[in-house]
Amino acid sequence: MTIYAVLGGTGDLGGALVRRLSAIGREVWIGSRDPAKAAAAAALLSEEFPDAKVGGLGLAEAAAAADICFVTVPYAAHADTLAQVRDAVQGKIVVDATVPLKPPAVGRVQLPASGSAVVDGAAILGEGVRVVSALQNVGAEKLARGGDINADVLIAGDDAEAVEVVRALLAEIGLRGWHVGPLANSAAAEAMTSVLIQLNRRYKLGQAGIVVTGKFEAPKT
Amino acid sequence: MTIYAVLGGTGDLGGALVRRLSAIGREVWIGSRDPAKAAAAAALLSEEFPDAKVGGLGLAEAAAAADICFVTVPYAAHADTLAQVRDAVQGKIVVDATVPLKPPAVGRVQLPASGSAVVDGAAILGEGVRVVSALQNVGAEKLARGGDINADVLIAGDDAEAVEVVRALLAEIGLRGWHVGPLANSAAAEAMTSVLIQLNRRYKLGQAGIVVTGKFEAPKT
Repeated sequence: MTIYAVLGGTGDLGGALVRRLSAIGREVWIGSRDPAKAAAAAALLSEEFPDAKVGGLGLAEAAAAADICFVTVPYAAHADTLAQVRDAVQGKIVVDATVPLKPPAVGRVQLPASGSAVVDGAAILGEGVRVVSALQNVGAEKLARGGDINADVLIAGDDAEAVEVVRALLAEIGLRGWHVGPLANSAAAEAMTSVLIQLNRRYKLGQAGIVVTGKFEAPKT
Repeated sequence: MTIYAVLGGTGDLGGALVRRLSAIGREVWIGSRDPAKAAAAAALLSEEFPDAKVGGLGLAEAAAAADICFVTVPYAAHADTLAQVRDAVQGKIVVDATVPLKPPAVGRVQLPASGSAVVDGAAILGEGVRVVSALQNVGAEKLARGGDINADVLIAGDDAEAVEVVRALLAEIGLRGWHVGPLANSAAAEAMTSVLIQLNRRYKLGQAGIVVTGKFEAPKT
C-alpha cells in the first residue's frame, strides 16, 4: 500500500489534504519543521477519525517514510524544505503545490525569473525525482470541508506516468485533474492563484476556483 | 456611439470579434497591415450581414478612427503593431488579447522576461493609453460560431473604469468577464492559453475554456 507524506501538513492546504487522504484510509505522515507540531496535528486528527493511519514527523523523516510526498509549504520555506528532503525523495514522486506568493501583494502575479516556483524546486531536487505540479488552485477551506469541490486541478509534469498516478489519486479524494502539459506549464496554475485571490476579494466568491469546459461533457481519460 | 477597431481583424480571433460586434450593430473598422485585405474582409462580412457597419483600413488609420481598439495580432507582430498605432491610440482604451506563443512549442508556457506580453505592450504605448488585457482564453472558432460560449474571460487592468467598460461590452457580445486584478495579472491568462492548447490536444475538448466557480452562483457585479 502506498504511503504518503504531506510536507507542510500542519498548514491549511496540507492539513486539508491529510484529512482527505485519511478519509479514504491512506497511511499519511505529516511532515513539519517542528516534529512535535506534526505529532500534535496527527493526534488531533486521530481523535476525530479513530481509524486514521496518521502520524507526525520532521520533514526529512516524513519524506523518507513515504512513497509519494506532497509539498504544501509557504513559498518562503519552499527551497529550504526541498533541500532538506532532497536525499529522502530520490526516485519518488513529489507533488509540489507551491505558489510563488510574495506577501503582502498576494493578489499580484509575481512569478520567479524561471517562470515557475515548481520548476525551480525540481532543479533543487535533481533529475532523479519525479516532480508533478498540482493543487495550486483549490481552496484549502473547500478541501477541508469535505464533499464536492467545484474546482479542477491543473496537473503539470514531464513524467506522464507520475502525472497519471497523481491524477488518479486526486480523483479518489474527489478532485478532477487534467494533465496540462510539461512541468513548465505549472506557471499557469501558479499565476492563477493570484487571480483567484482577486476574485475572492472582488466578487465575494467564497473560495473561487476554475473548471475546464469544452465541446464534450466528460474528459476522455 | 462608440466606434471600434480590431487590429488584426482579418485573423481568426479578430474576425470572430468583428462578427460579434457587427451582430449587435456596432461600427467596426478592421485594421490590417494590408488595407486591401482588411477591406476585402469587411466586404465579405457586409455581404453576409447587409446592415453591418464595417470597413477595412490600415492599422494606424483604423486605430485613429476608433474610440476603443482591440489588438488581436500574432505575438510576432505585437510590438511592431503597437509602435505603429501608438500615436493614434493616446487617451483611448486598448484591449490587448495578445498571448506570447512561440511556435512551434505553443503548448508550452513561455512568458516574456517581464512576465506578460500585454505589460510589454503597455510600455510601448506609454502611460497615456488605457490598456486592458482580455480574450486570451476564448476559442476563436467558438466566438465566430455565435451562440453561447461556455468560457469566461479574465480581464486584467490597472484602470478600473476601462476594465468595466470592456467587461460590459464583452457581456453584450455574450462573454462573461471578470476583473482579475492589475495588468500584471494578464500573465495568468497568457499562460492559460498554452494549457488550453494542451487540453484540446490531450482530451479532444474541441475548444477548451475555463469557467470561474465559487460559493455563489452568480458574480456580484
